[in-house]
Amino acid sequence: MKKISEAVVRRLPVYLQVLNDLHKRDVQTVSSQELGNKLDLNPAQIRKDLAYFGEFGRKGIGYDVSYLIEKIRQILKLDQPLSVGLVGAGNLGRALCNYNTYLKDNMKITAVFDAHPAVVGSQINSLTVQAMDDLKPKVEELNIVIGIITVPAVEAQNVADRFVDAGVKGILNFAPTILRVPDHIRIHYADFTTELLSLAYYLEKKEEEDDEPAVD
Amino acid sequence: MKKISEAVVRRLPVYLQVLNDLHKRDVQTVSSQELGNKLDLNPAQIRKDLAYFGEFGRKGIGYDVSYLIEKIRQILKLDQPLSVGLVGAGNLGRALCNYNTYLKDNMKITAVFDAHPAVVGSQINSLTVQAMDDLKPKVEELNIVIGIITVPAVEAQNVADRFVDAGVKGILNFAPTILRVPDHIRIHYADFTTELLSLAYYLEKKEEEDDEPAVD
Repeated sequence: MKKISEAVVRRLPVYLQVLNDLHKRDVQTVSSQELGNKLDLNPAQIRKDLAYFGEFGRKGIGYDVSYLIEKIRQILKLDQPLSVGLVGAGNLGRALCNYNTYLKDNMKITAVFDAHPAVVGSQINSLTVQAMDDLKPKVEELNIVIGIITVPAVEAQNVADRFVDAGVKGILNFAPTILRVPDHIRIHYADFTTELLSLAYYLEKKEEEDDEPAVD
Repeated sequence: MKKISEAVVRRLPVYLQVLNDLHKRDVQTVSSQELGNKLDLNPAQIRKDLAYFGEFGRKGIGYDVSYLIEKIRQILKLDQPLSVGLVGAGNLGRALCNYNTYLKDNMKITAVFDAHPAVVGSQINSLTVQAMDDLKPKVEELNIVIGIITVPAVEAQNVADRFVDAGVKGILNFAPTILRVPDHIRIHYADFTTELLSLAYYLEKKEEEDDEPAVD
């Protein structure tokens, strides 16, 4: 298979979401034009993205929804169970555990940890918050491969080190700070402030294009 | 100024974060090599990114930290106040309001709204949760330009419509669903599941490269 660019990999879960919605409504086939309308993407872009994985579409008919779902799930390896651990049972950690409902696939948050004794033992849905001392044995026992960090910035590097030591392969960091991890660990940042600041950049640009004054 | 690519715009807040850290520790100058180490980016990439905004660096000395902070803040328009509204005072909404501490710049969440009467009137730090009927007048009064959506997926489109009607220019959507907004509205998605699924893709690839079996 051709090397898939990072941008395409990031779009695949979004395609999957739209396709799952269509599947639920018993839609059998979809054109790149329809997908484009739903996703605000150029149909040519969609055809190019999906062509990475072989020739799925048929001219005049479009893509077979079920087949495309199955194919994308395979590519994202969603046909195998994937266990996720989370450290930081604050508001954000609790919110993310609620996403387990959306993670209909084999990917699930299977364990939650917190350094604060007052929080340990409390329940988040069906999960009991565990102590940090249990992190390493639980990562092994549950075969956790991804660690999510939702602790304050000052504690994040320590948590990352603990996850790496425990043997996870990837980290999703929500703390607003850059972390150092060994090269064999894949780290993604889900920093809300970055998202917000880059959004702001585009708003202001839009104002200038409209020839409106940037400041009153 | 040259057109700045989306990837660069997304990196600017990260540069800013590292530079602010350096500034706090009284560091005066930084080389692209040092920035590269901190950010896991190629120094040549950093020089290229920063060259968009003019010639900041000096050979053998590096970048002036304060000057670079000021310049990036200008580019991101952080030298002007920017008011943000949020709908959905659940765990995620509450967690995001706590980020106000990190948003040291002029960008602030200035109002929180919720459709559920039981939540209206409760406090999140210094903010009082307001009813949805107050959304439009408050967006005007506080000059809110960005709307954050942290409601369940089924309610998200309705909230987006309310924000658009109230006159925001950008939306940051945390609900795991695709939203339709008019072309003049910039929308960014901060979907945790997308981030998690694309991270998983890279983990599995790594396994294959190591010639480990993907499944036991």
